[in-house]
Amino acid sequence: MQVVECASYVAGPTGGLTLAQLGAEVVRIDPLGGGHDHRRWPLAPNGESYYWSSLNKGKRSVAVDLRSPEGQDLVVALITAPGPDRGLLIDNVVGRSWLGDNALRTSRKDLIHLRVQGHPDGRPAVDYTVNAGVGVPQITGPEGADGATRPVNHVLPAWDLITGVSVAAGMLAALHDRERTGNGAFIELALSDVALAGVANLGWLSEAELRGGDRPRHGNHLYGSFASDFATADGQRVMVVALTEGQWKALQTVTGTTKVFDALETALGVDLHVEEERYHHRETIAAILRPWFARRDLDQAGAELDRARVLWGPYRGMADVAAAHRRGGHRVLADIELAEPGQPGAAATPSTSITARSPLRWNGAYGEPGESPVLGRDTEQVLTEVLGLTAPELAGLHDRGVI
Amino acid sequence: MQVVECASYVAGPTGGLTLAQLGAEVVRIDPLGGGHDHRRWPLAPNGESYYWSSLNKGKRSVAVDLRSPEGQDLVVALITAPGPDRGLLIDNVVGRSWLGDNALRTSRKDLIHLRVQGHPDGRPAVDYTVNAGVGVPQITGPEGADGATRPVNHVLPAWDLITGVSVAAGMLAALHDRERTGNGAFIELALSDVALAGVANLGWLSEAELRGGDRPRHGNHLYGSFASDFATADGQRVMVVALTEGQWKALQTVTGTTKVFDALETALGVDLHVEEERYHHRETIAAILRPWFARRDLDQAGAELDRARVLWGPYRGMADVAAAHRRGGHRVLADIELAEPGQPGAAATPSTSITARSPLRWNGAYGEPGESPVLGRDTEQVLTEVLGLTAPELAGLHDRGVI
Repeated sequence: MQVVECASYVAGPTGGLTLAQLGAEVVRIDPLGGGHDHRRWPLAPNGESYYWSSLNKGKRSVAVDLRSPEGQDLVVALITAPGPDRGLLIDNVVGRSWLGDNALRTSRKDLIHLRVQGHPDGRPAVDYTVNAGVGVPQITGPEGADGATRPVNHVLPAWDLITGVSVAAGMLAALHDRERTGNGAFIELALSDVALAGVANLGWLSEAELRGGDRPRHGNHLYGSFASDFATADGQRVMVVALTEGQWKALQTVTGTTKVFDALETALGVDLHVEEERYHHRETIAAILRPWFARRDLDQAGAELDRARVLWGPYRGMADVAAAHRRGGHRVLADIELAEPGQPGAAATPSTSITARSPLRWNGAYGEPGESPVLGRDTEQVLTEVLGLTAPELAGLHDRGVI
Repeated sequence: MQVVECASYVAGPTGGLTLAQLGAEVVRIDPLGGGHDHRRWPLAPNGESYYWSSLNKGKRSVAVDLRSPEGQDLVVALITAPGPDRGLLIDNVVGRSWLGDNALRTSRKDLIHLRVQGHPDGRPAVDYTVNAGVGVPQITGPEGADGATRPVNHVLPAWDLITGVSVAAGMLAALHDRERTGNGAFIELALSDVALAGVANLGWLSEAELRGGDRPRHGNHLYGSFASDFATADGQRVMVVALTEGQWKALQTVTGTTKVFDALETALGVDLHVEEERYHHRETIAAILRPWFARRDLDQAGAELDRARVLWGPYRGMADVAAAHRRGGHRVLADIELAEPGQPGAAATPSTSITARSPLRWNGAYGEPGESPVLGRDTEQVLTEVLGLTAPELAGLHDRGVI
């Protein structure tokens, strides 16, 4: 399948990336000189965006003057090119009538067009406004008086990433349907709907309604069960989880606290084998376990936890993750070359970037991550291949500043 | 397509839910009496799990004694039933050899089998341990000395949700491939790989390596551009974003601060039209804007921001979101009936749950959310339909405690 992508920032490009890494050919359209996100932080030493290059790797890059009617016609022709594997568009465009679904569908009736939106009525929104609007920052952060007033925004653009993968699923479902029925589809997907569905499907809206207000913040505890973070003797930190009865028994055994908790159950008249009770007594449980972690370095604690089959994981900084990658620790990660041409007359300044393969491993193997994109590199090739443009026609487009 | 799901908690069931809402028939297999997640919080007044019922709605529920060889044989027969739309399995099983891919594939060579894992080597992990391991909690939360030491875990199980939607995309891609080539696939998807890919694709690992350490926390600011939260006169709070030059101009105009920032640019010798410079001076910008918000109630501020086309959103608690749903404000949300039979002899105790439709709107319309599941309700029907079991055979299975 050949998908055209006219989208910026995280959600739409993640949709195209997911499809590209699943084997689709993705043709990304950008304005000449790049869109708003082309130099988005973080930047490599050569000035390229680690962000843009990672999210758009493995795609072909077409750059066109999107304000010129001639450029717009080229883009519409690419989107609506004939063939069973073509006629697939991802966009997040607002207010460009020439890219409206009705307009496009006059050129190809069975177009599959997925539009990423902010709100379902078309108003703009971004991950951070959407997250504020569904109540997640209000229940994030330390419990108690300290953190009671100011919301804690997430750093990870989670709703963008979920939306991006949903784009890929929607496109594949629509293609599957078109192959059977011949019908195209106009699919809209609003970031705010993804967030509302996310919290609703976890049961959180029902709960807030039942409770008549937000649940309190729980810091690094896990709602409704037991999990907490603990500091180790060497200043490291671990996250420990006891969701199931087996995990809870293992945690007591390795920390030598089985009899303490037996006695505590008697004293308090509770059964800590029930996960809700572990949740209610989370602070007491954590306080009893804390000294065990405080007396061990991370390596020692980890070895003992592993032997006892406790569900746990260390906190790692991103620099540690990158260092582990250098030691070959994470096969899903890969390095790609960034080698955008320098300014006219200047040499290209290569850098590399740590990026990722698809986490979907097919028959035991990770796929290729995809090559780093170079803005506009594939414009002529794509226009020739898909639209059959000739060399003189391409030269004319250049002369007129369209490509 | 008919997908069999043997998975618990969030990721696998979200995959099945996504497919069900895209039109697939999903048959969910549970142990008799329900799995570990069957009563996961939050709970409805009737004791049912809002969480389990929302994540598993629209699926058929088959409950089988998974420890009995006869029960295992039934499950394998459902998974490997013939037909072009069957032979599709989602699981997150660890250590059950009878559900191993090799074993299953002896019964159906072209099986599409997607296994959700913790780590790619099969070790268990959950969202909270994985998130700790990729460094997100370490860069989340207030900037400065207050929050410098203790990581801030996210509350939203973001990696679970991303993994879940990736399951759906992977299954659809594999089915598309099987329809063309006849080949099945064994696809593995580790939660930790999803998280590593997520942070790598945003360029964050490259940046941490380049910097030689984690970036500092930024509270509710946006890294590399300008966004911040502001309190309004009535104790509400808004998130305001100025990523693009147009958004930045609109924000200055509505708050009447254009000349202030002009003068500040001169005084500091910086150009705040460059988003990186807005990031560097985020505290100063926020401090200059703060009084404007502090003097207006949320309604007034919102109306003015909207008129000026500022990109912003209010912080809402989840109870507010539920209340907005009661006023018809969110079409992606829907109510479903929870009506699990009570204990033997007791009446069923109906409740309702706020749940969600698919955020993917097809040709302008939201789909149905799907009915609430009832554990084991569809066992006999599915065994009859898919495996052709007769009434006496079903009665025998009942008598032997297999179903």
